[in-house]
Amino acid sequence: MTGQRADARRNYTLLLSVAERAIAEQGADASLEQIARTAGVGSGTVRRHFPTRHALLEAVFRRQVDALGDRARELAGRPDSRAALLEWLDAVLAFAATTRGLAEALNRDHEADPGEAHEHCATARLTEAGDPLVRRAADDGGLAPGVTITDLLTLVTGIALATEHSPDAATAANRLLRLTITGVSPA
Amino acid sequence: MTGQRADARRNYTLLLSVAERAIAEQGADASLEQIARTAGVGSGTVRRHFPTRHALLEAVFRRQVDALGDRARELAGRPDSRAALLEWLDAVLAFAATTRGLAEALNRDHEADPGEAHEHCATARLTEAGDPLVRRAADDGGLAPGVTITDLLTLVTGIALATEHSPDAATAANRLLRLTITGVSPA
Repeated sequence: MTGQRADARRNYTLLLSVAERAIAEQGADASLEQIARTAGVGSGTVRRHFPTRHALLEAVFRRQVDALGDRARELAGRPDSRAALLEWLDAVLAFAATTRGLAEALNRDHEADPGEAHEHCATARLTEAGDPLVRRAADDGGLAPGVTITDLLTLVTGIALATEHSPDAATAANRLLRLTITGVSPA
Repeated sequence: MTGQRADARRNYTLLLSVAERAIAEQGADASLEQIARTAGVGSGTVRRHFPTRHALLEAVFRRQVDALGDRARELAGRPDSRAALLEWLDAVLAFAATTRGLAEALNRDHEADPGEAHEHCATARLTEAGDPLVRRAADDGGLAPGVTITDLLTLVTGIALATEHSPDAATAANRLLRLTITGVSPA
């Protein structure tokens, strides 16, 4: 019984990891059969854990937002507060760049147009997670006066949106985030 | 005959100006009847100049891209090359923020999905128009090394996209453009 439960938990975590990579590479329409094959489980096991594609997408999305929250808490202990904030923003940008289709797919599935509910929830949670990093960097003089976590999340979102059709989106997005951090015309 | 032609041209220009403002305020679904009323012309006159809503939207969009090209040429003569570039970017941001729905509506109307043809064309024309301003500002040391017109247009597009649902989108977008120019963490 315990062994079965441990197996189920292991399969669940494995499926989520495989699904996360598949969705980042192929978008929200990634093949569930392919995900099951890569994870080495049967399609019955997939359906038992995730009865619908929506359930799987939602779990992947939530797991990534959870991971960004954990990351922020780890980074809050780093001595260099500016470096900690910038490292977290890189992670948020990678999330924003790979999960755009995911958030859209989740919202599309909702019957009663909830006004981009998943994106709003993720934004609220990321705002809460990143705020301590912003405050500490600001206190240490590592931020332009008055910059807020909302400013930073909005800029990251914009960069992800504006580069999503670029041939090498990740490189383009990282370049623009660096420019935004140091200023395109700091003179 | 000449009087009639002058009248027609005046009506055409007037309709475009009124339509431009209506679209900026209400989006691409702005009422054509209301536009005709505001311009003080009959709906027959509107139809004669713009047989379809698509024709009107296209004319408004082209006129705004034309205006940004003219603006860039005027600004190229200004003594302060950095200020000239920043003034032009403000104008591009205002365009990007108000014409998002317009570009989408134009692309939606195309039967054979042309891959966002109008946006691509506008981007190509704005790249050409803004490039001399960027080069001059870079030569004068007013830009971070290696910044290109494409970087700047992509950042402006991203800011417009990320703020379009903000309660006061213009203020939010301007704030983020200023931060991007001077750097959120220039340290």
